[in-house]
Amino acid sequence: MGKSEGFIPLNFTEYSPDEMQQKAHEFYQTIKRRRTVREFSDRPIPEGVIENCIKAAGTAPNGANKQPWHFVVVKDPEIKHKIRIAAEEEEQEFYNRRAPDDWLEDLEPFGTDEHKPFLEKAPCLIGIFAQPYHLDEHGKKEKHYYVKESVGIATGMLITALHQSGLATLTHTPSPMGFLNKIMKRPSHEKAFLLLVVGYPKQGTEVPDIAKKSLSEITTFL
Amino acid sequence: MGKSEGFIPLNFTEYSPDEMQQKAHEFYQTIKRRRTVREFSDRPIPEGVIENCIKAAGTAPNGANKQPWHFVVVKDPEIKHKIRIAAEEEEQEFYNRRAPDDWLEDLEPFGTDEHKPFLEKAPCLIGIFAQPYHLDEHGKKEKHYYVKESVGIATGMLITALHQSGLATLTHTPSPMGFLNKIMKRPSHEKAFLLLVVGYPKQGTEVPDIAKKSLSEITTFL
Repeated sequence: MGKSEGFIPLNFTEYSPDEMQQKAHEFYQTIKRRRTVREFSDRPIPEGVIENCIKAAGTAPNGANKQPWHFVVVKDPEIKHKIRIAAEEEEQEFYNRRAPDDWLEDLEPFGTDEHKPFLEKAPCLIGIFAQPYHLDEHGKKEKHYYVKESVGIATGMLITALHQSGLATLTHTPSPMGFLNKIMKRPSHEKAFLLLVVGYPKQGTEVPDIAKKSLSEITTFL
Repeated sequence: MGKSEGFIPLNFTEYSPDEMQQKAHEFYQTIKRRRTVREFSDRPIPEGVIENCIKAAGTAPNGANKQPWHFVVVKDPEIKHKIRIAAEEEEQEFYNRRAPDDWLEDLEPFGTDEHKPFLEKAPCLIGIFAQPYHLDEHGKKEKHYYVKESVGIATGMLITALHQSGLATLTHTPSPMGFLNKIMKRPSHEKAFLLLVVGYPKQGTEVPDIAKKSLSEITTFL
C-alpha cells in the first residue's frame, strides 16, 4: 500500500463479541419490520429528519469517491401533483399495453395498478438520480465509476435511515422514469434510479402477506 | 387498491417527532464513521454475526419480491487464496493495461494497486451475485425485475448491518469479476455484483483523507 500524506487514522469503535452478536441480532429484528407501504397519511415529517437521512445515504462507499448521486426532495403539492399525473400516464401504458402478461401476474399479490394517489398524499417524494459523469464548468466530462452499484448502495442506506427514523417508504419505479428529469429539473444525462415515497403510513394500512427466502436459500457458506 | 385476502396489518412502531429527529441524527452520526478499510486483522468474526447481517440484507425491497440475490460467504483459506490469485491477475491487467490514465489518476488518493493481500488476510469474503432470472426445476426461465436496483439496495443494507455490528468492510470490484462464478460455484447466468471483504481492521490502520459532498451539493429541495 503506497501510503502518502493524505491518510488519517481510522476512527473505529470495537465492540466485544457479545455486543457484536447482540447488535447484529437487533439490527435484523428492526429492519425486518420494514415493509413497502402503499397508503400514506398526509401528516408532515418532523423537520430535519429527511436531511439527516440523505446525509447518511451520502456516506455510502462508491467508485473513486465521485459520489455519483443527486437527491430531489419534493414537498410542494403542485409538483407532487404533476409527478402523479405524469407517473399515472406512464403506468396506464404499462399496465394496459407495455407489460407482458407474466409481469402483470407477478404483480398480482401486491394489488398494484395504474392509480398512484400516494404520490400526492404522502408528504415527501425523493427522486434519486444517478450521474454517469459530471460536467465541469467548461462542459468537460469527468467520468464516474460503478455508478449503478454506488447509487444502489446509497439508496439502501437511505431506506434504512428512513426506517430507523420511524418513517415508511415505497420504492416506486414508474416505467419509464424519464419524466422525472423534466419535472425535477435535472439535466438529461442524469438517470432517474427510483422515486422514494416517504411518510407516515395511513392508520390501519395493510401489506401483502408475502414471505422472504430463508438464509440457506440465499446464502452458500464455503 | 384491490385488496384481497393476502393482506395483513402493517406492524408499525410510531415514534414522537423528537424521537424521530434524535434517531435520524444518531443514525447519521454512526454511519458516517464507516470507512472503506484496506488492511484487515485475521481475527475471526464472532459466530452468527454474518448470518444476521445477510438476513437483514434479505429484507430489502425488490422487484415483485423475487429477491434476485445470492450471497457466498467464504472463510476457507484455500478458497480465499484462489480468489486472491485470480483477482490479482485481473487487477494486474487492469492497472497495467486496461485502465485508462484518467481512471488511474482518480484512484491515486486511495493508494490502491494490483496487490490484494486483504483477500487472504481478512477472515471473511462475501460474494454478492445478482440473478437476472431464476431457472426452475424444468429449466424454465422465471424473469426477475429491477435486478441491479434490488441487489444494490440489499448490498447497502448489508454494509450498514456489518458496520452497525462493529465490522469493517471493503467494497471490492475486481474488474472483470467473472472468475468469482467459477471459484464460488455459481451458475453462469448469475452476475457478480461485488465482493465484500469483512473483518476487524488492522490495528493502527489509516484511511484516505477524503471528503464527502455537502447536503446542499447532493440535494435539491422543491
